[in-house]
Amino acid sequence: MKRIIILFSALVFSAQPADAQNDSAYIRKIYDMNLRDGNTYEWLRELTTRMPSRLSGSPGAAQAVEWTDSLMKSLGVETWRQECMVPHWVRGVEQGHIVVRGKKIEVPICALGGSIATPPDGIIAEVVEVKRMEMVDILGKQGLLEGKIVFYNEPMNPTYINTFRAYSEAVRQRWSGAIKAAPYGAVGVVVRSMTLRMDDKPHAGSMGYVDSVQKIPACAISTLGAEKLSEYIRNNPSNQFSFKLTCKTHEDKLSYNVIGEIKGTKYPHEIVTVGGHLDAWDLGVGAHDDGGGCMQAIEVLRVFKSLGIQPKRTLRAVMFMNEENGGMGGKKYADEARAKGENHIAAIESDAGVLTPRGLSFKGDTTLVEHVMRWSSHFTPYMADRWFHGYGGADINHLGAKLCPELDCLVLIGMAPDSQRYFDFHHSWNDTFDQVNKRELELGAALMTSMAFLLTEHGIEE
Amino acid sequence: MKRIIILFSALVFSAQPADAQNDSAYIRKIYDMNLRDGNTYEWLRELTTRMPSRLSGSPGAAQAVEWTDSLMKSLGVETWRQECMVPHWVRGVEQGHIVVRGKKIEVPICALGGSIATPPDGIIAEVVEVKRMEMVDILGKQGLLEGKIVFYNEPMNPTYINTFRAYSEAVRQRWSGAIKAAPYGAVGVVVRSMTLRMDDKPHAGSMGYVDSVQKIPACAISTLGAEKLSEYIRNNPSNQFSFKLTCKTHEDKLSYNVIGEIKGTKYPHEIVTVGGHLDAWDLGVGAHDDGGGCMQAIEVLRVFKSLGIQPKRTLRAVMFMNEENGGMGGKKYADEARAKGENHIAAIESDAGVLTPRGLSFKGDTTLVEHVMRWSSHFTPYMADRWFHGYGGADINHLGAKLCPELDCLVLIGMAPDSQRYFDFHHSWNDTFDQVNKRELELGAALMTSMAFLLTEHGIEE
Repeated sequence: MKRIIILFSALVFSAQPADAQNDSAYIRKIYDMNLRDGNTYEWLRELTTRMPSRLSGSPGAAQAVEWTDSLMKSLGVETWRQECMVPHWVRGVEQGHIVVRGKKIEVPICALGGSIATPPDGIIAEVVEVKRMEMVDILGKQGLLEGKIVFYNEPMNPTYINTFRAYSEAVRQRWSGAIKAAPYGAVGVVVRSMTLRMDDKPHAGSMGYVDSVQKIPACAISTLGAEKLSEYIRNNPSNQFSFKLTCKTHEDKLSYNVIGEIKGTKYPHEIVTVGGHLDAWDLGVGAHDDGGGCMQAIEVLRVFKSLGIQPKRTLRAVMFMNEENGGMGGKKYADEARAKGENHIAAIESDAGVLTPRGLSFKGDTTLVEHVMRWSSHFTPYMADRWFHGYGGADINHLGAKLCPELDCLVLIGMAPDSQRYFDFHHSWNDTFDQVNKRELELGAALMTSMAFLLTEHGIEE
Repeated sequence: MKRIIILFSALVFSAQPADAQNDSAYIRKIYDMNLRDGNTYEWLRELTTRMPSRLSGSPGAAQAVEWTDSLMKSLGVETWRQECMVPHWVRGVEQGHIVVRGKKIEVPICALGGSIATPPDGIIAEVVEVKRMEMVDILGKQGLLEGKIVFYNEPMNPTYINTFRAYSEAVRQRWSGAIKAAPYGAVGVVVRSMTLRMDDKPHAGSMGYVDSVQKIPACAISTLGAEKLSEYIRNNPSNQFSFKLTCKTHEDKLSYNVIGEIKGTKYPHEIVTVGGHLDAWDLGVGAHDDGGGCMQAIEVLRVFKSLGIQPKRTLRAVMFMNEENGGMGGKKYADEARAKGENHIAAIESDAGVLTPRGLSFKGDTTLVEHVMRWSSHFTPYMADRWFHGYGGADINHLGAKLCPELDCLVLIGMAPDSQRYFDFHHSWNDTFDQVNKRELELGAALMTSMAFLLTEHGIEE
């Protein structure tokens, strides 16, 4: 029996010949270069210092288009831009108060992205707190929301280990809160910030309207503010909330995806895309969301160049525009790919914070995905081998089969770093450069580069 | 063949009956309680705010003994203290300068723990930089270190994924630097801080002397300071370094380990210990190192109490004293265990930062360790299942077979959280409460509690 095992081991070993060993050696080189001589961190410092505010349509976003284009050119890669029209929403003034017998107690709020303004003097009304969205219908049908401000105060569930799961459950309050409350006569909504941290920073993010429903203004309140508001209402339901927003949606603006490309030497028509989104919410500097992801994608190009890797398939780094409030960049990229009949074989998106990489999330045809997932053992030494079937990414998902039937021979890959701290920063003034750890950022760049290497080298089919 | 497999699977499944399911359910309860109603974070805030400075022999350390004793008593567990004599070293003034033609440029330094003071006016001398410790012998034998300050400037290796590996290689410069340089006539040593981060914070830590070798003063320099010093020497080898330390080793002081215990209901003589160390370096507040580890250990007791878990075996939380500069608490605990003939079956130490738990490190008899390691799959849903043979912990290792032959039926377990950020904080003013993420701390407490549950419930043998 032992002899058979030895023989079998030998076969396995010789069945992983030059190729796999070569891959391992390249991956080691890639990691070494990122960790020893990485550029990602200093680039991110420059991006977030010089262009801290990059909401779609803003001067910062326009400057970031120029800067990333120049940066990629300076690496000696071909670059171009894809025009796309993007929403142009501007924040303005925002003030929130709990009103107790005429006395105003300030609490930290911010307008939700896309909200209309309040009347110039703001809104003041009694508050109805709901802990579960379903309560809106129950209360609304009893006429209890008429003339009221609806206060969505369901916290993210702290018992989920993956904080994205908690976010995706709670975020419907932010997205659908106004749509749900308006038909019952509510005059505005205030939503608990989407974070597990207790602090005084409100978290922004998009909210939605539909044409068939009256638009009412919507703001987010910090978690500590939410606790305070809840307590005041509990103590006396006639205590009021007031808020004032001067935000405004302007005409759509012309903006761009920025693309850098290294043409494949052997299969130039097979394309592997890596990317992040260049726009960011206007609170904080978008270091984790998603300046870091963009810099990682550019670093992929630099490391290929520095190590002299000539990819067999075409490698593209894409700075997607407008992920945060419209997704027009992602749509544009997919539309143009479809129009040109491009053969995209795989895409990797980094948009989950630049925290310690733990693995990757895969979406696509099961056979193709499982073929690629066999590479996970290469990443065991790097502690990044927690690979699972899941989500690709908000921008690259547009490349998926639904929008582009021609593009279904495609593996979508989402970077899946440690999620514990991400919602501390997300869409808030906490998302600053000093909250980025250089090594975590670089390990992500190394993982993305290594995957780009394997994908451009081997493709996605046997 | 398929039928055999199915049959086998069925056997395996029925061999993991009520017990394993019950374990899973308890572990889920433990995590839920930690993540929803954890006390660890607020306790750590109190410890680090009221007793920020807890070096052995300090008033802060004495106060922390009282406070943790009271805290554990308040949970309704029996507590006691173990006397131990600890070194009492006090930092004093510390100043470092690069001296360029008489002009002094200040650089951030700190005395290394245990160092003697410099003469009252400090030391000034030319500097010999060594990038590899082996160079000391080569240069020393040529007489090139006579009257010089030796500057150990080998950075931690950034390409290792586990930063503890990089630390353990580089730290010999700090520990042995003075011993190695003194015989060649060096008058002092300055050591690059043990961190991968480039900043202005020097990192403390113990250094050693031996009786047979002249004692010379030793300090650490911040990483940015080290780069600057290196550059000045490169530019002109006659540039000098000066430093002044007034640190002093006083008489040993009486201090204590603090122990809280819940007696086992079925096998009270089998003991499972969880713990961290209460002392901390006097730079920063010892939040990650190791206030957090202590609070996690106390939280284990609280969660057992709150969930009404009556452990079959005895559970102890130990606040070890003097891990940082002597290890007298760990030795005392093991000595007393041996003297009393206690049957310690397992010990868990949290002393690697309170960062996202990724797994556990095991040390001990292979059969016993592998028996315990079979539980790893319980922790896959919590992403804490990276279990490996390795190190226990500086305090619990004293329980190991070498010191206590009677205690070799013992599994030593070290918490192995994500290591990327740890040395940013370690032994420096960066180790502050605001660098602790509540969820990461609580996930660690939950892992420790769950392991304590499994160990007290099932023991370590079939």
